[in-house]
Amino acid sequence: MKWKRSERLVDMTHFLLEHPHKLISLTYFSDLYQSAKSSISEDLGIVKETFEEKGIGLLMTVPGAAGGVKYIPKLQAHEIKAVMADLMEELSHSDRLLPGGYLYMTDVLGNPEMMNRVGKVFATAFAKEKIDVIMTVATKGIPIAHAIARHLNVPVVIVRRDSKVTEGSTVSINYVSGSSRRIQTMVLSKRSMKSGQRVLITDDFMKVGGTMNGMKNLLEEFECTLAGVAVLVEAEHKDERLVEKYLSLVKLHEVSEKERTIALEEGNYFENGGI
Amino acid sequence: MKWKRSERLVDMTHFLLEHPHKLISLTYFSDLYQSAKSSISEDLGIVKETFEEKGIGLLMTVPGAAGGVKYIPKLQAHEIKAVMADLMEELSHSDRLLPGGYLYMTDVLGNPEMMNRVGKVFATAFAKEKIDVIMTVATKGIPIAHAIARHLNVPVVIVRRDSKVTEGSTVSINYVSGSSRRIQTMVLSKRSMKSGQRVLITDDFMKVGGTMNGMKNLLEEFECTLAGVAVLVEAEHKDERLVEKYLSLVKLHEVSEKERTIALEEGNYFENGGI
Repeated sequence: MKWKRSERLVDMTHFLLEHPHKLISLTYFSDLYQSAKSSISEDLGIVKETFEEKGIGLLMTVPGAAGGVKYIPKLQAHEIKAVMADLMEELSHSDRLLPGGYLYMTDVLGNPEMMNRVGKVFATAFAKEKIDVIMTVATKGIPIAHAIARHLNVPVVIVRRDSKVTEGSTVSINYVSGSSRRIQTMVLSKRSMKSGQRVLITDDFMKVGGTMNGMKNLLEEFECTLAGVAVLVEAEHKDERLVEKYLSLVKLHEVSEKERTIALEEGNYFENGGI
Repeated sequence: MKWKRSERLVDMTHFLLEHPHKLISLTYFSDLYQSAKSSISEDLGIVKETFEEKGIGLLMTVPGAAGGVKYIPKLQAHEIKAVMADLMEELSHSDRLLPGGYLYMTDVLGNPEMMNRVGKVFATAFAKEKIDVIMTVATKGIPIAHAIARHLNVPVVIVRRDSKVTEGSTVSINYVSGSSRRIQTMVLSKRSMKSGQRVLITDDFMKVGGTMNGMKNLLEEFECTLAGVAVLVEAEHKDERLVEKYLSLVKLHEVSEKERTIALEEGNYFENGGI
């Protein structure tokens, strides 16, 4: 069957979007669509232009015999601003206030469309980094980790609080939780990472950074390197932060249980070189 | 700016893929692309044909003033077979065997591309059902729940083993775990569901179905209805199953720790009306 250009464009767009950060050879497309490489090149030119103009992402061309194209999910600054604004609007409702000044965010983390946008925001920031693995700690960081992973096309590993038989043999460390100063345990399956991998760590919430720091220590046990830290919401606090470089989308400035107000501001994403 | 058809096709494909199960009016596209509705209709005809021919999904047209188009993710039978075969191939390696006859699957659950495919397989099965919420239990079911949710455009709620301050007030139930016959607890935030919602429950592994049954009981506490059960891997066993109707992708037939063999077969997806 011979494909028309219009059909090729639709199918190619779907294929590229489903395979981010993966090199696809021209031959693959030219075989799939039974079309000359010159036509495929023209198609890809149109896809590239539209992707870049509409802020869908980049289409990188890798020349040579082993070359091809690679779709790099990348949002524009105004779209990232919009994700931050939507998050702040959503999180500012006073009925999110919980006893102790905590914020109910579980519904936001359960919203697949929002998570997809958040994932693309962080994938934009780390598009040029070499990332081999995304690491998070159970439970609330998992949707964010998977959303980033899908846009970067890398696996997710999940650190647990307790060891389970289904994890096989594990490596476990103790760390001091930042705010409560309690000793806690983190466990990760031995098979989940190889030495030398570059790891992006992520979580939904960070105060002093004790959990993030725990994950950093765990990385060392696996002889892996920290490639970045991505946080959805960071909270202001008086203690010194345990993690220096990180990206956040929202900063929880102040919570008043008495007045039932939540003060939020933009996170450090742009300041810290997210884009 | 006036858009060319080719650019519209690329952008429209991206937009529809990002908004599954959402009705988009023709006016939206005609405003966005500064094009006549008749041109938009022709574009959508091309997208529809390609989506259906290539097994990307359906493009449903809703006529009338409040009408528009809706992208329904839907795989074809041979693609679902391929997902099952890839899962079986992956899970059959003997190094996955853990003490006690358990199977290491954490890496499969951490693979975003595989999870995306699994999510689309289950979204295909439940495309015509009214689903309001996807429910799973922490930790391993979360990637599957989110993958299905993204294709059905509904929120995820996560049942926990313990209550946490960040969940606000919770509803908790006791249930009997199927295989170990132990009493266990399940906790769900009160805010996570409204009465009358239709809920799809999912998990990575099911033996007798105790956990699934626990989630079913939890649904009743919330006055919600069970809309379906989706399991990645079910294990054969002698006891009577606690859940009657469910869809599975892989069946763990037999595990021999001594011979280090894993016998797998296709799950009941096709038999039980998955497609």
